[in-house]
Order: sequence, then structure tokens, then C-alpha cells
Amino acid sequence: MFAWVIYDLTDARIRRRVVETCKDFGLVRFQRSVFFGEVSSSGFDQIAEAMNEVTRPREGEVRTDTDSVLVLPLCERCLSRKVVIGKPFDEERFRKRRYRIIG
Amino acid sequence: MFAWVIYDLTDARIRRRVVETCKDFGLVRFQRSVFFGEVSSSGFDQIAEAMNEVTRPREGEVRTDTDSVLVLPLCERCLSRKVVIGKPFDEERFRKRRYRIIG
Repeated sequence: MFAWVIYDLTDARIRRRVVETCKDFGLVRFQRSVFFGEVSSSGFDQIAEAMNEVTRPREGEVRTDTDSVLVLPLCERCLSRKVVIGKPFDEERFRKRRYRIIG
Repeated sequence: MFAWVIYDLTDARIRRRVVETCKDFGLVRFQRSVFFGEVSSSGFDQIAEAMNEVTRPREGEVRTDTDSVLVLPLCERCLSRKVVIGKPFDEERFRKRRYRIIG
């Protein structure tokens, strides 16, 4: 399965934590505030939990009531119907690297 | 099924056409550049086609190679696993109005 993280956040410090967390989970940036990548089912839940944690405003930080982070799952069937206009969308870039022990 | 339209566009004139087109199809804005709504399968295809059309740059308009519009389908199962942090996400707001003839 795949995960989209799509955020609309006022405070740059919270945005940075969301970006770092996306990268920690191996998600790849596709648009300014959109990350995407292949994840396991439990990985999806961990991302959602981590996003909850890192978007909690710390001292002096601002979170308005229009701020939001969407963590969206996408099954293979939904993925196959996606339409991307403009920038190329190389699916392989977002798929998890698979390794086979050969020796 | 549901459709997300998520855009990252440089030219305000193209952005406006994308916004108007989303509203024409009954999609509702959730984030600055994110629209969402329930659509039929054929409706999804029409949205994708319309987005292709309205994002074609007209005279004097700019479309950079990092500009993009994502038109993402979401089945009920994927929708049920979505996680929204921050702003409330009232699913009913995005569902198509159903009418029953009563007289």
C-alpha cells in the first residue's frame, strides 16, 4: 500500500518536523507540501501516529484551526487510476527498494 | 468513490481555472490547494480530462516543469483508513447529496 502526506501548516517549525518525519519514513516529496511512498500497513499507522506527535505545537509555536495534515492510504487499485498532470510521476521512485540476498 | 484534486501551480490564472473546475464538479476545498468530494467513476474520468484541458497554458501563461495536478481516486476502504490531523474533516460535507422523490 501507499501513503500520501499532504499538509497545510502555518508554522515553519512544525512544517520542518513534518518534512523530516516524512523523510525518516522513506516518503518522497512530490509537491511542495505533498509526500508519497510505499509503506507497510503497520508503517502507515506509525506515520499517522508520528504526525500526530510532531504537529503538537511546542512552546511559542502556532497551530491555527485551518492547519491540517492528511495521511491518506492508497491501495494498488486506487493508485492505478491516479492521474498526474504536468510534472512526471515515476512510480518506481516511490516504491520501497526490495533486496534479495544473493550470496 | 471519491476524488482528491491536489495542485501545485505557479500561474494564478491556471490555479483559478482549476479551482473553478473543482467547484463545477461539486468538489469541496479542504486545504489551500486540495479539493475533495464523492464522484461517480465516469465523473472521476471527466474531472481528469477537464484538469488536463484547463491546465493547458494559454497565451502569456506560465507552466513550469515542477507544476503539477494530482487527481487521486479513493475507494471507501482507503477512505476509511485516512487520518486527518488538525482541522475537522466532516465526511458528510464531501458526500454527494442524495435526493428521493417523495410525492
